[in-house]
Amino acid sequence: MQLEKYFVKGELIPAIVQEKGTKEVLMLAYMNRESLQKTLETGYTWFYSRSRQELWNKGATSGHLQKVVSISGDCDDDTLLVIVEQTGPACHTGSHSCFFKKIKDFAE
Amino acid sequence: MQLEKYFVKGELIPAIVQEKGTKEVLMLAYMNRESLQKTLETGYTWFYSRSRQELWNKGATSGHLQKVVSISGDCDDDTLLVIVEQTGPACHTGSHSCFFKKIKDFAE
Repeated sequence: MQLEKYFVKGELIPAIVQEKGTKEVLMLAYMNRESLQKTLETGYTWFYSRSRQELWNKGATSGHLQKVVSISGDCDDDTLLVIVEQTGPACHTGSHSCFFKKIKDFAE
Repeated sequence: MQLEKYFVKGELIPAIVQEKGTKEVLMLAYMNRESLQKTLETGYTWFYSRSRQELWNKGATSGHLQKVVSISGDCDDDTLLVIVEQTGPACHTGSHSCFFKKIKDFAE
């Protein structure tokens, strides 16, 4: 697999995680080469934590693992879309999705 | 609205764009303060182009505008999720979504 093209612009690429069944967007995290490789090899999501500067296997401590269904890249190779089967909540707050802070709803 | 918290980690915040009806993830682009403000004011998506270093109103030249339904922030205020009604294809290639390059499908 040609993965190098995803790391031309930077060492980290944003990965959108979307739930297969509900199509809900669960979270966004970052992958480096190694975490993308581990995700492809294991079938579960691995990311790179910018704050802790280390790889993390999503759900390894909480049990809230993400089983990968598919991974796609975008048109200009600088974002990934990871479709998963989510066990438990995706968010560390206990929310199913991380996107629970509504900024604005627009009128129809 | 408290928008400053979205620009603490950096001047740009990634914004995931998802289609309302299909729930398809269409694209990811970046917003700075001004583009977020313009999006909130106009109800159509504005982003900041990192390559051209300027604001862009998505679809202003192609006509493929994105009417905003809602904007949410994530748990740690470093990603936005923008739900839109998409006119025409979201991708400059003519694809409905930018995520058309399948990297891997995992077996059931």
